[in-house]
Amino acid sequence: MTEDSRPGRPVMLGQNQYGKAETRVVKVTRDGATHHIKDLNVSVALSGDMDEVHYSGSNANVLPTDTTKNTVYAFAKEHGIESAEQFGIHLARHFVTSQEAIRTARIRIEEYAWDRIETSDAGPGSGGADRPRHSFVRQGRETRLAQITYDGSSWEVVSGLKDLTVMNSTNSEFWGYVKDKYTTLPEAHDRILATRVAARWRFGWSDDADPMPSWETSYAEVRRHLLQAFAETYSYSLQQTLYRMGARIIDNRAEIDEVRFSLPNQHHFLVDLAPFGLKNDNEVYFAADRPYGLIEATVLRDGCESRIPVDLTNL
Amino acid sequence: MTEDSRPGRPVMLGQNQYGKAETRVVKVTRDGATHHIKDLNVSVALSGDMDEVHYSGSNANVLPTDTTKNTVYAFAKEHGIESAEQFGIHLARHFVTSQEAIRTARIRIEEYAWDRIETSDAGPGSGGADRPRHSFVRQGRETRLAQITYDGSSWEVVSGLKDLTVMNSTNSEFWGYVKDKYTTLPEAHDRILATRVAARWRFGWSDDADPMPSWETSYAEVRRHLLQAFAETYSYSLQQTLYRMGARIIDNRAEIDEVRFSLPNQHHFLVDLAPFGLKNDNEVYFAADRPYGLIEATVLRDGCESRIPVDLTNL
Amino acid sequence: MTEDSRPGRPVMLGQNQYGKAETRVVKVTRDGATHHIKDLNVSVALSGDMDEVHYSGSNANVLPTDTTKNTVYAFAKEHGIESAEQFGIHLARHFVTSQEAIRTARIRIEEYAWDRIETSDAGPGSGGADRPRHSFVRQGRETRLAQITYDGSSWEVVSGLKDLTVMNSTNSEFWGYVKDKYTTLPEAHDRILATRVAARWRFGWSDDADPMPSWETSYAEVRRHLLQAFAETYSYSLQQTLYRMGARIIDNRAEIDEVRFSLPNQHHFLVDLAPFGLKNDNEVYFAADRPYGLIEATVLRDGCESRIPVDLTNL
Amino acid sequence: MTEDSRPGRPVMLGQNQYGKAETRVVKVTRDGATHHIKDLNVSVALSGDMDEVHYSGSNANVLPTDTTKNTVYAFAKEHGIESAEQFGIHLARHFVTSQEAIRTARIRIEEYAWDRIETSDAGPGSGGADRPRHSFVRQGRETRLAQITYDGSSWEVVSGLKDLTVMNSTNSEFWGYVKDKYTTLPEAHDRILATRVAARWRFGWSDDADPMPSWETSYAEVRRHLLQAFAETYSYSLQQTLYRMGARIIDNRAEIDEVRFSLPNQHHFLVDLAPFGLKNDNEVYFAADRPYGLIEATVLRDGCESRIPVDLTNL
Repeated sequence: MTEDSRPGRPVMLGQNQYGKAETRVVKVTRDGATHHIKDLNVSVALSGDMDEVHYSGSNANVLPTDTTKNTVYAFAKEHGIESAEQFGIHLARHFVTSQEAIRTARIRIEEYAWDRIETSDAGPGSGGADRPRHSFVRQGRETRLAQITYDGSSWEVVSGLKDLTVMNSTNSEFWGYVKDKYTTLPEAHDRILATRVAARWRFGWSDDADPMPSWETSYAEVRRHLLQAFAETYSYSLQQTLYRMGARIIDNRAEIDEVRFSLPNQHHFLVDLAPFGLKNDNEVYFAADRPYGLIEATVLRDGCESRIPVDLTNL
Repeated sequence: MTEDSRPGRPVMLGQNQYGKAETRVVKVTRDGATHHIKDLNVSVALSGDMDEVHYSGSNANVLPTDTTKNTVYAFAKEHGIESAEQFGIHLARHFVTSQEAIRTARIRIEEYAWDRIETSDAGPGSGGADRPRHSFVRQGRETRLAQITYDGSSWEVVSGLKDLTVMNSTNSEFWGYVKDKYTTLPEAHDRILATRVAARWRFGWSDDADPMPSWETSYAEVRRHLLQAFAETYSYSLQQTLYRMGARIIDNRAEIDEVRFSLPNQHHFLVDLAPFGLKNDNEVYFAADRPYGLIEATVLRDGCESRIPVDLTNL
Repeated sequence: MTEDSRPGRPVMLGQNQYGKAETRVVKVTRDGATHHIKDLNVSVALSGDMDEVHYSGSNANVLPTDTTKNTVYAFAKEHGIESAEQFGIHLARHFVTSQEAIRTARIRIEEYAWDRIETSDAGPGSGGADRPRHSFVRQGRETRLAQITYDGSSWEVVSGLKDLTVMNSTNSEFWGYVKDKYTTLPEAHDRILATRVAARWRFGWSDDADPMPSWETSYAEVRRHLLQAFAETYSYSLQQTLYRMGARIIDNRAEIDEVRFSLPNQHHFLVDLAPFGLKNDNEVYFAADRPYGLIEATVLRDGCESRIPVDLTNL
Repeated sequence: MTEDSRPGRPVMLGQNQYGKAETRVVKVTRDGATHHIKDLNVSVALSGDMDEVHYSGSNANVLPTDTTKNTVYAFAKEHGIESAEQFGIHLARHFVTSQEAIRTARIRIEEYAWDRIETSDAGPGSGGADRPRHSFVRQGRETRLAQITYDGSSWEVVSGLKDLTVMNSTNSEFWGYVKDKYTTLPEAHDRILATRVAARWRFGWSDDADPMPSWETSYAEVRRHLLQAFAETYSYSLQQTLYRMGARIIDNRAEIDEVRFSLPNQHHFLVDLAPFGLKNDNEVYFAADRPYGLIEATVLRDGCESRIPVDLTNL
């Protein structure tokens, strides 16, 4: 085919994977006049016996990424989309069990949520007693995430979210820190605490023989605990708030063994209004863009191993 | 100071304006344990007797953009932020009436909405009977917009929104169109209709002597009518849906004279599953990015003049 | 078809247009082993006799946006892509002259530039004496822009660029400005001046009977004058620099009647190192994101009318 | 201070780090009338004895992120910025050696490159024989990256780049792949191959006692090899091209032990012009956005361990 790069070369191939990224699939399910939609962005990464395609360009072991895209669409029809996690499990199992050269499949899914638009009447074209329910508005700013990895014997499921922006307008302090020669920051006894939450949580479930968690319920509950822990923590540091969010999830959701957060501290600086003869009693803030503090940590169930990487990626 | 570019040159200065863009101000108002927040991004554009700064660099007529930024913060304290429109009116009036060289001020504001996080209990630090209400989560994906222009005698207020994404999963058709030699599109009798709404609406109010509209109520009602018109229209073209959205606003909101929309047709293509032996009965769609149809139009109250520009900008 | 919104309603349809936006076309031209590429993003907006599609949804006058996309691709083959402007002229003429209902066509084009990757040798597969020249790397950060509008009798061509970021590390001052009660800015006698240039320039050519400008040469020369005027101006305000850039283009390029700039003042603040016992002699700067000054103005050939809108859009 | 979350809880703290992200520093160095600039975005992540701040909110071991920002600015003055890598080494050493609680520092740097604007003459204000050279234009689209990690005894330096977009308009094929029931892709014997290169490469240098590589030369050479390998490879798969790029770097740059690439396959689909009676002889392509193939792999010097994570992050 073409010259081989291997002989006599001090070069090795390391970890490698490939697949189609960002296949956008929307699934409509009709229950009479009531429609339900699932709106996903699916990325497939396959790895296995792929040395030759790197060395010589032989594609004999390569299932085209175009095929992985087709499979996403076909499976949306064949299996439906009950949850992002369940859909990813169908896909991962298929690639690993149907292709000899593929040893591991990792499916990453972004899910975009939609709310119903409530209509005041049936509207034209409804043609009957049933009020049509087929209109939706994109919800929230955050994106739900799921990553399903399968190696033919055991499963790893990590769920998460990104771009969930939250703010406490009080009950946050920051003082008592180290002061070195480069420290100029004044201590704060009442500040705004705001962050754009990125979180990933790993399920204990790994074995086909065990019952699966209820993915949809679990997501809703984790999100609820996370928000309430943020709101209810009187905070002396963003690290403390982070830990409470993680601990509350571990305490309340038995199906989850590990949580990792990446929390940018979205600084809101009190504006100095004194030059204008005005007092700023924690009222007027400048919302800064960059730089920002970045607080990252993992919270684990006691005895569990940490497996979520240090850097959260688009999962 | 430096050489003058004018003498003997066939060059003229045309429309010009300057000011500080994107001043990010967050205002917290405390009503006991209940906090309220307003989160704005304010851009100021001033114009008037500014030839000399262009010709010679003399800043004798120039109020620094840094000062316009300071003014935004000081006014947040002095006047509060009742609504984006009212805040812009305070600012525009100030610049035009306080600076001789400034003839016109245009204030553009983006407003970011926040929902409350409802907490299950008082939480630590609440210290009393009052349940604290100071925790918020960024709402929705859309951004509210306002533009206030004042020339010393009359006002123009344009409000709007962007990034409001909506979808109808049925009740949309597209057929009966022109076919030329480059036409290959098959007609559609049941399709998804989705768009990311950008809209601007202009108020009739222009005179200080007249009572102002209720800006907050007006925004909420326009948004509601817009969404319901989208949901309730059985659509034969996105143009028709656009017109219904605009007409419904004009019909129902007497304070508004003009609406303009820019509606990208976010195509959802039915995936061909036949090669896999599957039928796709309007169930599985590919959500495409580019290209997209772009539908833009103005809807006016009869007898009113159109003043919103053809191209919607970030306002 | 469906109910008519018109009768008895105080609602009018105003300016409207439609078409396919962001059709991405790449054209490869082969000259032996040397390839040339043109990489465009083409947006079509058509207007004319389109009332009925808004009122009733009748598409009888509507050429589908899918067809305008197909036409872009077919014309890339039939006419080639000599320049963005010439390609837009072919497209605009076609839509206006071939469709009775279409009165005006506006074609907007973004062009992405590529440099050649110079190779050290022929490489495998070259199979002969000719060194292959088919490898490219995306050039620069700026995007070239063109807008062609045709109404069946006269032409308007506006070219431009965006995202051209420039910086002078000295020869910029700012002082002698108005000081009011909100002014705190200290005067500056040596500062960094940096901006991300957005510019549009309008050609005098409008009549098919007149010879067209040389679009490619004109673009290169305008860009060169703009950069050199930025570099060579000792600046007392960004407005002055803007004016010099515009005047230099008008002075040197007879084919151009009008230039408009939108120049964000990308502030570089001198960092206060005094708390650390260090002197900052115009050496260490903080590059700020927001807010930023925004300076916008039009420069015209004497006697010409201004036709570029106040707000530069994505053209 | 506040209640402790630890007692009786089945919760552990895992890996954690904190610091100021995205401190934007621009350093001007003056060599007479010739200025040099370095434009960096610096992110600091510190870890060590930080349990208590998570558990109780005690900041006794916490150097504020504001101080890490100040340190970046002070070091730009005290040490200058010779290269991103050298600057990161200064910073990392400082944090680990000056703060008892800090065990490891990881510095990530983005560097933005600028070209000189060549001026035709001295310009006003030059005041002498020296032609001023203080004007710059932002170069290229790619961003240079560096990550420096220090634990008090050994160093890890990873350099890289992102957003380097390249294209071969021929010499690329794709055929001979696996076909399953979901495969519809036709084989290609002459296609466009385009990708936006993200690459990271790890240096062998880890010990203060050994001489450091020449960071600036190394970057320029790696980039050159990467581009030429892309251009000169006759490709049967993007994996093969990736491997050649990596192998060429390992073969030619002794200072580098490991390279990882993440290469989106930016599909350019041949447009079907047959419906319009036109032949498309590899001339007119549609540049698609999503989905895209994503090819990722590590290439290693024989005997070296892989340490670059599977997912490339913003480093």
